[in-house]
Amino acid sequence: MSSNENAVTRLDLRSRLLVSTAGELRRRVDEARIRPGAVIGLVPTMGFFHEGHLSLMRAARAECSYVIVSAFVNPIQFGATEDFNTYPRDLDRDLAVAAGEGVDLMFAPPEHEVYQPGFDTMVVPGKISEGLCGASRPGHFRGVATIVAKLFNIVKPDTAYFGQKDAQQVAVIRRMATDLNFDVAIRVCPTVREPGGLAMSSRNTYLSDEEREQAAVLFRALSAAKEAAASGETSVSRIRRKMKKMIGGEYLVDLEYVKIVNPVDLEPVEEVATEALVAVAARVGRTRLIDNMMLTPGGPDAADA
Amino acid sequence: MSSNENAVTRLDLRSRLLVSTAGELRRRVDEARIRPGAVIGLVPTMGFFHEGHLSLMRAARAECSYVIVSAFVNPIQFGATEDFNTYPRDLDRDLAVAAGEGVDLMFAPPEHEVYQPGFDTMVVPGKISEGLCGASRPGHFRGVATIVAKLFNIVKPDTAYFGQKDAQQVAVIRRMATDLNFDVAIRVCPTVREPGGLAMSSRNTYLSDEEREQAAVLFRALSAAKEAAASGETSVSRIRRKMKKMIGGEYLVDLEYVKIVNPVDLEPVEEVATEALVAVAARVGRTRLIDNMMLTPGGPDAADA
Repeated sequence: MSSNENAVTRLDLRSRLLVSTAGELRRRVDEARIRPGAVIGLVPTMGFFHEGHLSLMRAARAECSYVIVSAFVNPIQFGATEDFNTYPRDLDRDLAVAAGEGVDLMFAPPEHEVYQPGFDTMVVPGKISEGLCGASRPGHFRGVATIVAKLFNIVKPDTAYFGQKDAQQVAVIRRMATDLNFDVAIRVCPTVREPGGLAMSSRNTYLSDEEREQAAVLFRALSAAKEAAASGETSVSRIRRKMKKMIGGEYLVDLEYVKIVNPVDLEPVEEVATEALVAVAARVGRTRLIDNMMLTPGGPDAADA
Repeated sequence: MSSNENAVTRLDLRSRLLVSTAGELRRRVDEARIRPGAVIGLVPTMGFFHEGHLSLMRAARAECSYVIVSAFVNPIQFGATEDFNTYPRDLDRDLAVAAGEGVDLMFAPPEHEVYQPGFDTMVVPGKISEGLCGASRPGHFRGVATIVAKLFNIVKPDTAYFGQKDAQQVAVIRRMATDLNFDVAIRVCPTVREPGGLAMSSRNTYLSDEEREQAAVLFRALSAAKEAAASGETSVSRIRRKMKKMIGGEYLVDLEYVKIVNPVDLEPVEEVATEALVAVAARVGRTRLIDNMMLTPGGPDAADA
């Protein structure tokens, strides 16, 4: 395609798919909602799409009559020293990718449309937001809960799609949806991984080749934990020790935490007696990465294998 | 009517009007919503209806095809030392009154239906909730914002009705509706007063005859402020001084605050140059009362009278 044709495609996609105000979004979705059998799906994202986002769009496309993807780098979920300014953005590429997945509409509002002058109300998760990533990212989950509540109220989706990679975000949003009586089903899709096992993340773009290679240790350590639990290991401290040792073997990977918790309320568990969530966070160079897996107890000692 | 007939009426009203679970409420309202031209109105209250509540129901009845009144004494908006336990309640009387106003449905859930085990998410207003009543009732407005957000999500009303008597509550809820993109119109109805001027409140039931008589000074002081502003007085300090002097004349009335503020963001104003809100709170015996009026500048010096 010539660069001229590219420009035409870009303009066409923008006019067909892109919505930048809440009012226009609501109008378009309300039109779709009144069609017989309408099922409205929302995929909230910060854009810069990777295969993980695509898997959410595909799930939504398979289950819904109308699919909205939001792409908004939400300033209030970033700490003052975090990467809000450098977070990768590419609206035209995202539009083309969303169009390729058959998305009906992409909501990419400017910041001043989302947070208007005098903005003064937050949705604040409690205890569930304090451990894991919440410990090192104070205010992050209230930023997440607030933007998701806003999107729920603008779109009023039947179903919203989130990735399991952000396990604490999933738990916080499930809790919020229940606590504030949102009439929205929360669907969680499996983590999508690069060939070496590294969980897909827009932030992976920050990684050097060597960092990317070493970062895959998080996947290997989680897999080892999963295997240990499946083979009958129930000791949280033994599983964590093993993981820390593996991760410690990669000199570019600086572990922030490795925790084994109840997957619903994120409270630490003392042993892997029922399904448990093992979650890790680490800095690899200047990049903060997170990942997790479900542990299912198995082996000779499992209660009901 | 015999007491037997009364009992039958009570049972009939309960079965016809009363809903106690969010699921049943949503089902009933969703049925009403699909009728052509449906307009859903919500009147959130803590029950123990007085003429103020009735004026809200009448406004809703005049404007909506389907009217829901909620009556729930919301524990999380009461401080530890406040009157949650003694707050007046009379479900059967409320049902009869609501039926008389042509309300379609009354939502009076038990506490465990509203706040389920593990409840862990609050809607938290910011600066707007810190002054006036917020200063002496920390946590009150987050309790209010949270229950109203929940009711909005359960009912999904087109319009919700609130009384101007609770001016800070109105400002907090308007702010929340804007900030969280609730698709709900907020209608505010004038304060309804007893013959002597005392603003109607369920808490007036706590007052002795003498307290009730003295409490009317709040109305008289507000009226004097309104008159002064209308006659060209712009000095906030002079208006407040006059009001304090009047209120100080009633020995049972213990003033908590008298403030003149911007009616939207509740920030104090220095002079009455445009419409301003004058708000008072006082203890009369063991009863905390609030009231307010709008001040409209007038007289020879008014900018555009």
